[in-house]
Amino acid sequence: MNFAISQLNFKIADFAVNTRKIIEAIQSAHAQGADLVLFSELAVSGAPALDLLKSSVFLNQVDEAVQEIARSCKNIDCIVGAPYRDSSSGQVYNGALFCSQGKVERVISKRELNDQGLIHETPYFVSGSGADQIEVKGSRVLITLDDVLENEIADSVDLIISLRNSPFSYTEYDQRMERIKAVSQQLATGMVEVNQVGAQGQLIFDGRSVVVNSTEGYFDKLKAFQEDFKLFRLEGKSLQSLQPKIDTEKYTETALLYEALVLGIRDYFDKNGLKKALIGLSGGIDSSLVAALACEALGAENVKGILMPSMYSTGHSVKDAEDLANNFGFEYEIVPIKGGYDAFIEMLNPVFGTEDSAEVDLTEQNIQARVRAVVLMAISNKQGYVVLNTSNKSEAAMGYGTLYGDLVGAISVLGDVYKTQVFELSRYVNRNQQLIPEHAINKAPSAELKPGQKDSDSLPVYEILDPILYLLIEKNLSTSQIVELGHDKNEVERIVRMMSRVGFKLFQTPPALRVSPRAFGSGLNLPLVAKLA
Amino acid sequence: MNFAISQLNFKIADFAVNTRKIIEAIQSAHAQGADLVLFSELAVSGAPALDLLKSSVFLNQVDEAVQEIARSCKNIDCIVGAPYRDSSSGQVYNGALFCSQGKVERVISKRELNDQGLIHETPYFVSGSGADQIEVKGSRVLITLDDVLENEIADSVDLIISLRNSPFSYTEYDQRMERIKAVSQQLATGMVEVNQVGAQGQLIFDGRSVVVNSTEGYFDKLKAFQEDFKLFRLEGKSLQSLQPKIDTEKYTETALLYEALVLGIRDYFDKNGLKKALIGLSGGIDSSLVAALACEALGAENVKGILMPSMYSTGHSVKDAEDLANNFGFEYEIVPIKGGYDAFIEMLNPVFGTEDSAEVDLTEQNIQARVRAVVLMAISNKQGYVVLNTSNKSEAAMGYGTLYGDLVGAISVLGDVYKTQVFELSRYVNRNQQLIPEHAINKAPSAELKPGQKDSDSLPVYEILDPILYLLIEKNLSTSQIVELGHDKNEVERIVRMMSRVGFKLFQTPPALRVSPRAFGSGLNLPLVAKLA
Repeated sequence: MNFAISQLNFKIADFAVNTRKIIEAIQSAHAQGADLVLFSELAVSGAPALDLLKSSVFLNQVDEAVQEIARSCKNIDCIVGAPYRDSSSGQVYNGALFCSQGKVERVISKRELNDQGLIHETPYFVSGSGADQIEVKGSRVLITLDDVLENEIADSVDLIISLRNSPFSYTEYDQRMERIKAVSQQLATGMVEVNQVGAQGQLIFDGRSVVVNSTEGYFDKLKAFQEDFKLFRLEGKSLQSLQPKIDTEKYTETALLYEALVLGIRDYFDKNGLKKALIGLSGGIDSSLVAALACEALGAENVKGILMPSMYSTGHSVKDAEDLANNFGFEYEIVPIKGGYDAFIEMLNPVFGTEDSAEVDLTEQNIQARVRAVVLMAISNKQGYVVLNTSNKSEAAMGYGTLYGDLVGAISVLGDVYKTQVFELSRYVNRNQQLIPEHAINKAPSAELKPGQKDSDSLPVYEILDPILYLLIEKNLSTSQIVELGHDKNEVERIVRMMSRVGFKLFQTPPALRVSPRAFGSGLNLPLVAKLA
Repeated sequence: MNFAISQLNFKIADFAVNTRKIIEAIQSAHAQGADLVLFSELAVSGAPALDLLKSSVFLNQVDEAVQEIARSCKNIDCIVGAPYRDSSSGQVYNGALFCSQGKVERVISKRELNDQGLIHETPYFVSGSGADQIEVKGSRVLITLDDVLENEIADSVDLIISLRNSPFSYTEYDQRMERIKAVSQQLATGMVEVNQVGAQGQLIFDGRSVVVNSTEGYFDKLKAFQEDFKLFRLEGKSLQSLQPKIDTEKYTETALLYEALVLGIRDYFDKNGLKKALIGLSGGIDSSLVAALACEALGAENVKGILMPSMYSTGHSVKDAEDLANNFGFEYEIVPIKGGYDAFIEMLNPVFGTEDSAEVDLTEQNIQARVRAVVLMAISNKQGYVVLNTSNKSEAAMGYGTLYGDLVGAISVLGDVYKTQVFELSRYVNRNQQLIPEHAINKAPSAELKPGQKDSDSLPVYEILDPILYLLIEKNLSTSQIVELGHDKNEVERIVRMMSRVGFKLFQTPPALRVSPRAFGSGLNLPLVAKLA
């Protein structure tokens, strides 16, 4: 039996496009001699569709699309993921539809619903009966949407096919591979996992659909971060790739992260019908990296940088930003912020009085950051650009950023990327030639909102901060567990204290592309009001 | 058997305060002759604690608090809600702990976990075994945390006690009462529901713990939006109030909404250790109402209004705002925004060029709104005020508001309140004397960002808009269903189209006090990227 894996990038609720892609893949698989073609979980609707799953109009459109797809399965079978509404009970399941001879022959429904990260299934789906067997050209195939299989139902099948929506994070793929290999080995049966590819808002699906062999383990996979199509043959329990295998070692962890962020930006723009990105350039490493990623995702001709020096900006900051723009070949403008800043100081003088006005504090720093935000948003409004936010996860965790100032933007590119990863990514961008100015990478990080300011005046240095944040956030360890691992108790306690006060800011920062196990505002869900550390 | 209901306002994770309140109530109940005292669901920890429930430090603190509470139950029994970690499996349940003779005698665990609105239980709790019976002084009592009871277990008990966390919305109480009455009648047994009181960030718990009688239906309840304590006697299956009964008809729907919002503001400030509120006053009805609610919640001495007239503000707007401040007796300042506005126009001139600068569009309106936001945030930073957002749900649904402009603030007071409800609430504020100037209520709503502007230039009038929004959002009806109810097809389609484009703004607006069945960003969860209407 020959089968094809079709790994596609869907758009949520765009039934015309999704259905066309699926039917074209069915036709192409048939033309190439496949007996069966496989699609990912919730392929027909795109996922996660969230509250759209509560709309009867949406569910009717799913039904129509499914019928059209089924009708196209005349001389070939397919298994495709879709929300499935039971016509008698009206209940909605997360289904894998087996289409054969022009109709939906069987519906397998997901049993273990998933509520991790930004995936929310229990509010929308009813738990179904789980894995089930079908037969294609004499091969017995087990279809599942669940992680855990019950042994009895997996007995005596020739192949296990799992439809997935596994979002990318820099730890998830290894866990996924280990799980698949373990299941395959335990059941002594080969296993195929078909994964969605493409970014859906904050979530980035990496594709990398895999085939494992119960004896060898890893066998073959499809591309990362791209649509792909591949043919395999199953004889008895034996698997064979009908096309060249993929080299597994192509990507380093940093390269994967880079590709994920590029896809995240590109799909956010493409799927929303947007084109041009606007970035506030400080000459620092965060905004430089965001500009580099945006150029890769959208083309330098669709990127514009705005340099907004203040009285505290160093000369080299402007030069670094100009060098960056010239290296990548994107347009930039310089808008000094002194005029706006002075106007606010004058407007506020009568309110603050002589005493308050004399004492320069965080207020004046925030005014600078907010004047920049007004400038960026005005250019965005007038010229049709979308502002990309440039703050990172280390700053977000510490509340180091100005709400409605540097924290503005339609989407946060680095909001789930630690500062140490920002450095690694910048060096990766420069792997062949120096595109991000070396000085922007090597200078001490600074917000440049007062004379001589350094991030390390207010925060632990990033080499100390990031590993502790990683243990707190990604590993969910307590202060005492982290101290036991050898970190300084005072530093850990200071970080926990600072982090406990950022909830209200995180509530209003732009949605961030998710690349870690626990992104703020998705994996992490803290009460707005609570007694915290 | 005498029992007491203790309806308390807890603070999430503040174990010292919560434990003290619970133990004092136990002692007071004992002193008044009660055999049993009842507390609400998750009383010990406060709820919803969200990701704090994943912290072992937090769960250890719960254990310690529970032991201390149990030890105080020497001559009296109590039933108290708390997260319960099973010591062998490590799994965490939503538990009702029956404490007697100084220790935890029995743990009843919630079976049907709830993921409605802002309550998220499945990510944190394991589903338990559900209702169970205990015996107190010869009375057989069924304890439950679930809505649905299985008949067999409810057989032959004298009383059903349900611990709850039912947040307020203007439809939920009636549904709750109907459910309780139906269960009580069906099982021919009296029923007690103990509810949490107090606001926890966006969620406002209304208390109103109730006692129903299987024969009469409604029997008695505790106060709305306040802590309360009340004694009852159970003899056989017969219930008796040992204190004066509450008049059920005290509150109109508008009065309840008013009290809910006041409590929402007060607890947000109290529980976060905040004191002073800052409000941008336009002279319009939304900001006037927010000021009125803030004065009631925090005292006029803790409220400050900032009037920020632009070149398009009408003279009467300033006068209305001044009258408002004088009527309530709160402080205000006038900061005209022309200086800031002109500075931005000048800064942006070189970027926009002659052509773009000549064409005045939404950009210039947004600059005005954002200049106001910078002023408000600067005063907030310098003088320690917390900015209250003043936009309403009708505007939010239509995307009628400027991100980082009038959409700033720590918390949105009216973000879940439709404009027509804003009018009703304002008339309620004026029920005894005219506090909100009549002119602010009666004039045509306007953002005053360009000459002669009215909301109705961009939006359907609120009398048409709000009923359609209610059907779309709260009732989750489709366009065709709404048209069938007699609404104009073009208007409905226009509203659906406008609403489908607001997702990205809703992602970054302040958290809103939730008072409807489906608040944005809580009840409503739309994909950031999707093909929408």
